[in-house]
Amino acid sequence: MKILTRKQTAEFLNENDNFVILTHRRPDGDTLGSAALLCRGLRKLGKNAHILRNPEITEKYAHLHQGLTTEQVAEGAVLIAVDTASRGMLPEAFSQYADRIILRIDHHATADSFTDCELVEPETAACGELVARVLSLMGVQLDKTMANALYTAISTDTGCFRYANTTAETFEVAAHCAYCGADLFAINQALFETRSLGRLRLEGWLIEHMLFLQEGKVAICALPKAIEEELGLTEDDLENISGFPRSIEGVKIAATIREDGENRVKISVRAVPGYDAAAICAQFGGGGHKGAAGASMNCSMAEAVEAIKKVMPTL
Amino acid sequence: MKILTRKQTAEFLNENDNFVILTHRRPDGDTLGSAALLCRGLRKLGKNAHILRNPEITEKYAHLHQGLTTEQVAEGAVLIAVDTASRGMLPEAFSQYADRIILRIDHHATADSFTDCELVEPETAACGELVARVLSLMGVQLDKTMANALYTAISTDTGCFRYANTTAETFEVAAHCAYCGADLFAINQALFETRSLGRLRLEGWLIEHMLFLQEGKVAICALPKAIEEELGLTEDDLENISGFPRSIEGVKIAATIREDGENRVKISVRAVPGYDAAAICAQFGGGGHKGAAGASMNCSMAEAVEAIKKVMPTL
Repeated sequence: MKILTRKQTAEFLNENDNFVILTHRRPDGDTLGSAALLCRGLRKLGKNAHILRNPEITEKYAHLHQGLTTEQVAEGAVLIAVDTASRGMLPEAFSQYADRIILRIDHHATADSFTDCELVEPETAACGELVARVLSLMGVQLDKTMANALYTAISTDTGCFRYANTTAETFEVAAHCAYCGADLFAINQALFETRSLGRLRLEGWLIEHMLFLQEGKVAICALPKAIEEELGLTEDDLENISGFPRSIEGVKIAATIREDGENRVKISVRAVPGYDAAAICAQFGGGGHKGAAGASMNCSMAEAVEAIKKVMPTL
Repeated sequence: MKILTRKQTAEFLNENDNFVILTHRRPDGDTLGSAALLCRGLRKLGKNAHILRNPEITEKYAHLHQGLTTEQVAEGAVLIAVDTASRGMLPEAFSQYADRIILRIDHHATADSFTDCELVEPETAACGELVARVLSLMGVQLDKTMANALYTAISTDTGCFRYANTTAETFEVAAHCAYCGADLFAINQALFETRSLGRLRLEGWLIEHMLFLQEGKVAICALPKAIEEELGLTEDDLENISGFPRSIEGVKIAATIREDGENRVKISVRAVPGYDAAAICAQFGGGGHKGAAGASMNCSMAEAVEAIKKVMPTL
């Protein structure tokens, strides 16, 4: 596997003419926006570029790939994966191409190399930012549609500039998107200011049933499968639900428990700076970071709640 | 009243040596951050500057003014109001000084002039941005504390870069804050990623009791005073609650009704682009903009719900 610089990546793209771009499973705004940006950039340079249609793309993002997709990989096309940290991150339908991918452009620190060459910069907030910098080296000017794709990528991966990965460079790229005419407000409304009724019902249920300990510094949520079904929740509704109890004023450590099969539960722990989520999960054989960690347990939900209560430090 | 340019404002500040800065009532991150930034900037230039202690400052923002406040206005001090659109926006306790304010720095389009001179730029997302640009003309370099004050100001008034007033310039100022060491993530967590338990209980109650019409395109919430009391809600919990039903996926027009005394209710209507909230409120003698409007009615909550259902257009 060969590690490329941005400049070498630009040279590689310049030297080839037929590209098919792959995105990751459960695709988000960064992988989809990066692919759209790269595809449009390569086409602007007169190259033949397509995005392999991701069967898991959701309605919210479908417009990004309109007019750019292909259903199959043409003979001789150079395959590029964007924002895809490992082979396992590819959608099931793409696994047949996993060994043929030449270049990976990514920003995941814990990525597993699985392509011939790669441009990986873990310090970059979004993969889209990296794609933009490579295209800029190739002399590509962003049009409004490309600026929208790039803005979607960076706003997705920074939680609209709220996450800790947001840097001065991120804001500079956002400024560039704005100068190029990106529809900032419309994208923000669609991605961040709208919540599904299912999500809101879920949050309402959790608030009603949440267990608060140590004067509200600790919160424990147990979400039974039966309630997920009763509320008719989709995977979108449940996205990042373990971050929800942590966002309650005063909560320092929050644990969310979900059922994961017969007598098996998954625990997600979130902690504000100064507290250690990984230390709690380690006691159940799990792991992660200080801010976010997880573990699996073979027990009932009620037993998991009791077990977590026992290992919770006094804050 | 004299209108000043940024440069003239810088000259005015250069020519004077004793300043007291005033903020607006129910102070938010922009007025408080602007005052802190201006005060620290003037002190960096060797001038004597204080912020008149705003009795309405909340705990969340108290740190911004630590070490900067005064309880009274010294003889001969030049009074400056920041982010204060009119005399009526001053806290009750400041009304005695209303006629003595020399300079107003503000970004409110509908502002009423009430000071000797003013620098008002309605296109600027936050007043803090304007203060930063004036200080920059005076050669002031931002330190970390100043960058935090500026970031608080701009992130507050742009809803952390989600509102329609966010521009390329806003992102550039944010990038500058980041370069100067602002604690972006900590500020975001405190201002945007934390919700009170009261607010979450309120949202849970509203979701349970919301009336959806026209396949979910219209939402009507009626929030009785008794429920506000039962949930123990504060004004902070209720802030911008009329924006809540509008943020539900699929909702185009949302009306929120709150009791406002005996047999009297206040209606707030919110609409997504393409729909007209003001037209609905006009039918009850109210007004506002297409996106947000309000009205008062002398009737019960149940009667108000029926009245609103009748005037709601078919979407």
